[in-house]
Amino acid sequence: MRAFSHPDQLRHRPRFFLQRGQLRSNFEVPARAEALLAALGRLGLTPETAALPARGALEAVHAPDYLDFLEGAYVAWQKLPSPGDEVVGNTHATGDALANGGRRPGGIIGQAGWYTADTSCPIGAGSWEAIHAAAGVALAAAAEAAAGRQAYGLCRPPGHHAYRARAGGHCYLNNAAIAVAALRQAGAARVAVLDIDSHHGNGTQGIFWEDASVLTVSVHGDPSNYYPFFTGYAEETGPANTNRNLPLPAGTGDAAWLEAIATGIEAARGFGAEALVVSLGFDPSEHEPLGLLKVTADGFARAGADIAGLRLPTAIIQEGGYNVEVMGSLLERFLTGWGAA
Amino acid sequence: MRAFSHPDQLRHRPRFFLQRGQLRSNFEVPARAEALLAALGRLGLTPETAALPARGALEAVHAPDYLDFLEGAYVAWQKLPSPGDEVVGNTHATGDALANGGRRPGGIIGQAGWYTADTSCPIGAGSWEAIHAAAGVALAAAAEAAAGRQAYGLCRPPGHHAYRARAGGHCYLNNAAIAVAALRQAGAARVAVLDIDSHHGNGTQGIFWEDASVLTVSVHGDPSNYYPFFTGYAEETGPANTNRNLPLPAGTGDAAWLEAIATGIEAARGFGAEALVVSLGFDPSEHEPLGLLKVTADGFARAGADIAGLRLPTAIIQEGGYNVEVMGSLLERFLTGWGAA
Repeated sequence: MRAFSHPDQLRHRPRFFLQRGQLRSNFEVPARAEALLAALGRLGLTPETAALPARGALEAVHAPDYLDFLEGAYVAWQKLPSPGDEVVGNTHATGDALANGGRRPGGIIGQAGWYTADTSCPIGAGSWEAIHAAAGVALAAAAEAAAGRQAYGLCRPPGHHAYRARAGGHCYLNNAAIAVAALRQAGAARVAVLDIDSHHGNGTQGIFWEDASVLTVSVHGDPSNYYPFFTGYAEETGPANTNRNLPLPAGTGDAAWLEAIATGIEAARGFGAEALVVSLGFDPSEHEPLGLLKVTADGFARAGADIAGLRLPTAIIQEGGYNVEVMGSLLERFLTGWGAA
Repeated sequence: MRAFSHPDQLRHRPRFFLQRGQLRSNFEVPARAEALLAALGRLGLTPETAALPARGALEAVHAPDYLDFLEGAYVAWQKLPSPGDEVVGNTHATGDALANGGRRPGGIIGQAGWYTADTSCPIGAGSWEAIHAAAGVALAAAAEAAAGRQAYGLCRPPGHHAYRARAGGHCYLNNAAIAVAALRQAGAARVAVLDIDSHHGNGTQGIFWEDASVLTVSVHGDPSNYYPFFTGYAEETGPANTNRNLPLPAGTGDAAWLEAIATGIEAARGFGAEALVVSLGFDPSEHEPLGLLKVTADGFARAGADIAGLRLPTAIIQEGGYNVEVMGSLLERFLTGWGAA
């Protein structure tokens, strides 16, 4: 199995993070990617540097104005009087604003709120370069899948909370969705996404909500009291019945987690997927700082083996997981279970 | 002219406030109400204490579940592990979440985001009591207008950014909308709102968007780069053509501001309003810290005189204005211009 990464992904160093009304340190840190790089090295899968993406590959998923915002926001923000070091959205485009004629504002402060769902996606110096490179990493993995193989894309920042034109929850471009679009473009009639990050893949669900050629399955912690809160419930099946959410209660361990993944695997098989995108998060781990689930290292190894059993062309896309001490070994276990190394 | 207030309004002491990505002190402070109280005293209009509102009067505007949230949020928040001192929403219900099956979550963290549009409406100890009392103050002023008279309601916190089920921009219950609903309930066939706070009265617009019996007019700073950013543009006239926005460029002084107010007065007259609600903010002042407009004290006196010229039963509802040093004298000038004192 080939693996891909890009050095620019280390240039994103977000700081702002709110938790229960208090400012904390952002934990989506470059050390996450470094831990995963080290793990790949131990597996003998030292990643190749992906090419930066063509604009068209991004526009297959994201709105052009949103791409322009992400690329230009930091420079525009720094021209404000006494700006903070990072672009942080605050006043967001809720349904109310949209229901009575609301529109994208001209100024950068308003745009920061228009294009974000929360304050957990700050944009600082170097952020765009990392965001852009991560999409290239996803495309490199997708190209392998398009050639009938399986690959791992070490994407950072993660992507599955990003909608067509909105960032949120540490995510800016939806790397998994960009991989799906590339696979479709390369000829796959039906593509399945299996998202096993502990948070609902709301952006991926939203992007493909009306697209009957893409099955989106997400196995995650019950969102009632866990990000992204508003979506991820079982009844969200979509207009074409191609969305499947498998929320799990707090404290869920290996057995029920693997059972939900098995349900997702069956759904992908039943859908007749010709290719697979795995959104891989390590935050279901029992060692995750803000964790809701209690999955062990053995559980990740088993998940890798089970999903590999589909024997589909696959792009494995890195999503979340924030315990820098354990995530490298969890990647090792997952890929070893997969039979990739 | 009678004036109304309530001592519980001083119990709301918000602290959290984000500005350009940096944490600042919240300036919607109890001293604002104290400055206005002192000004009323100087005018010989020492306010009477309003009764607390009946639930039904609030439900005429706001969703029952939203009222329950506002009343119970602080206690629920304090039961979280290591919570902040205030309820602060973060992950907001954007159009994306709503477009693919999103719903109100069960937990308080998610609800804080569901029911707010930004972080500028924290809920601390005593906040609900102040919010609730402010609605009572608005109802007392509305009762005077329903009896054919004119009255001033010293409402704090302000209200015009609050939608039917969403807080934002220092606002929780829409005091002006509650006054309108009471006037309609008391028999006024057509009610006009003239909002001269420097920020677009987005909540009031949203609440009455489809209601042809209520004309909403807002005179405010151009929202392109000014709160609430997404709404307040001239083209938002509403399905019944009963909304009028008069955005003014940065630096606008007395002449153009008064001209826009005159346009609003003519609109209210043309609408055949039987009663008027004035949303009165002092933030158009040239002395406003985060101000966009440059209105003088003379301008406020003239605005009072001009609006009084409508000779309608009127509830004047206090909205924003954050320069504690000058807002008392601006209220004096406005009410003296009105002929109220």
